[in-house]
Amino acid sequence: MNKPIDVVTVGNAIVDVLGRVEDEFLQRLGVEKGIMQLIDTERAKEIYAAMGPATESSGGSAGNTAAGLANLGSRVAYIGKVKQDQLGEIFTHDMRALGAQFDTAPAPETHPLATARSFVLVTPDGERSMNTYLGVAPEVTTDDMDETLLSQTKWIYVEGYLWDTEAQKAAIRTGIERCKAAGGKAALSLSDPFCVERHRDSFLELIRSGQVDLVFGNHHELCSLYQTEDVDQAMAFLRADVPMAAITLGPQGSMVITKTETVTSPAAPRTRVDATGAGDLFAAGFLHGLCQSEPLATCAHYGNLVAGETISQMGARPSCDLKALIVSA
Amino acid sequence: MNKPIDVVTVGNAIVDVLGRVEDEFLQRLGVEKGIMQLIDTERAKEIYAAMGPATESSGGSAGNTAAGLANLGSRVAYIGKVKQDQLGEIFTHDMRALGAQFDTAPAPETHPLATARSFVLVTPDGERSMNTYLGVAPEVTTDDMDETLLSQTKWIYVEGYLWDTEAQKAAIRTGIERCKAAGGKAALSLSDPFCVERHRDSFLELIRSGQVDLVFGNHHELCSLYQTEDVDQAMAFLRADVPMAAITLGPQGSMVITKTETVTSPAAPRTRVDATGAGDLFAAGFLHGLCQSEPLATCAHYGNLVAGETISQMGARPSCDLKALIVSA
Repeated sequence: MNKPIDVVTVGNAIVDVLGRVEDEFLQRLGVEKGIMQLIDTERAKEIYAAMGPATESSGGSAGNTAAGLANLGSRVAYIGKVKQDQLGEIFTHDMRALGAQFDTAPAPETHPLATARSFVLVTPDGERSMNTYLGVAPEVTTDDMDETLLSQTKWIYVEGYLWDTEAQKAAIRTGIERCKAAGGKAALSLSDPFCVERHRDSFLELIRSGQVDLVFGNHHELCSLYQTEDVDQAMAFLRADVPMAAITLGPQGSMVITKTETVTSPAAPRTRVDATGAGDLFAAGFLHGLCQSEPLATCAHYGNLVAGETISQMGARPSCDLKALIVSA
Repeated sequence: MNKPIDVVTVGNAIVDVLGRVEDEFLQRLGVEKGIMQLIDTERAKEIYAAMGPATESSGGSAGNTAAGLANLGSRVAYIGKVKQDQLGEIFTHDMRALGAQFDTAPAPETHPLATARSFVLVTPDGERSMNTYLGVAPEVTTDDMDETLLSQTKWIYVEGYLWDTEAQKAAIRTGIERCKAAGGKAALSLSDPFCVERHRDSFLELIRSGQVDLVFGNHHELCSLYQTEDVDQAMAFLRADVPMAAITLGPQGSMVITKTETVTSPAAPRTRVDATGAGDLFAAGFLHGLCQSEPLATCAHYGNLVAGETISQMGARPSCDLKALIVSA
């Protein structure tokens, strides 16, 4: 495909508020470890008041993937909703500054909600537990699915986190249709096991609709999707449902399945400092490889390398030159 | 002194917007390297638009010193002006979360200016060049100099950056008076050579007024204050003007002078990643030692250790346990 954009990623536009905590803190506040929980204003106040000094950094699953892709040299655009407030300004700056096209109309200053933020609590083992106040982020509509932009991209990549209200689902379906109508392909991230739990039936419906060409997930999400504890069985189901899937297996690396192939790739041996963004950056590395027409084993290897780099640093957005990382690989 | 608070620090309440740049970037934008420059709204827009993805972290010279003191176990409070906006909320959260008392009334939501931010550009050599949009920060008045608070502290520590308008100067003088009237002592940071350049006469007047017990500075600031290139001569002048001064000498460590003593202390051997906050954290270590009634050599050693830790990480606020650092010393 000769298109001017490699990937358009679509997701909840979120600023991460990143802080280190002890496991005892999670227990005391009733935060479930290792997953993403949605929180309301009151809970946001409670968690923020209890947590220590933090640093702020643009995040959001698909936002992180866009950051990784741009850093790797892919041509990337982002669709997501911020408000015209200080955090929205920060998110917008960072997205454009990393080289991604980002023109989604922000919610106006008068909107009663704010730009989304996620309190990302990092425990000494490097696991991250996310508590997300969505604010205006879910207000992405079909109007935001820029037809010209989506006709110009090889891939649309949608985070499962965005799959919630009927308006959001309609927006995602429209985005995928517009991309595919122009010959592009669609990737869906399962995002989080609890996200899968909430939306299992409609995820499966979307996946089985024939509109999704590639599914990203980890073994927990996959097992949740097919309601089994047997990851091999889940893989077999998924293989029947989609043309391609790229599954991360934590320290075991990753596995890519197509109708006819199974490719495994070992994890990059890195010490886990902060897992935030590992899955998002795996997707970035993998998609970058696909857009460069690399073989699947190379795509998976790029994904593992970039994910490994991400877990070895605080925060989800890459702070080093990922191009150098994969060139030296 | 048996007082419930060790140090009240007073300064511009600023959120740092921290990004890595090449030296070429500084030249292209006309940013003077290694110092703090004040910028207006237009220049803020220009620099932010040109710089890459950034991370946000609470900063401000005296704010960083408060963070270091609290981390070390000193009892600390902060006086500074934010607005009731998202950045103000972040600054306030971080200050309170690190254990500092912070009750200065914020500027209301309707105020036309915003909470201050500083675009901190870090070059590959670890030097930092700060471009500060002050917003509401200079609007600290005598009303903010809480008499009860200041009567309860051993030390008031004022950053020279705050010394600007007549209203600010009046506020600082009042703060120092209220602290000293209750038996406390006053420390002044010279902050920056260009800050000294702008306010030399009134700085000297304040220092010679007998109200200042301790001056913090580096050799550049000191030479600027006394308009000499001979640091020894500047030291001699300063010794005549104040009871005590703690001077940082970069890789040469630090020197403490009193009427009768000269104490030198070598720098902690650390690789410079980002110099942001080094002087602020030196002051934190030194004041912590003073409040613990440690000998001057120990105070200077604490300052060097804590400053060394700060330059070895990105950002000014300490991310590790500084108590462990000085205990193991």
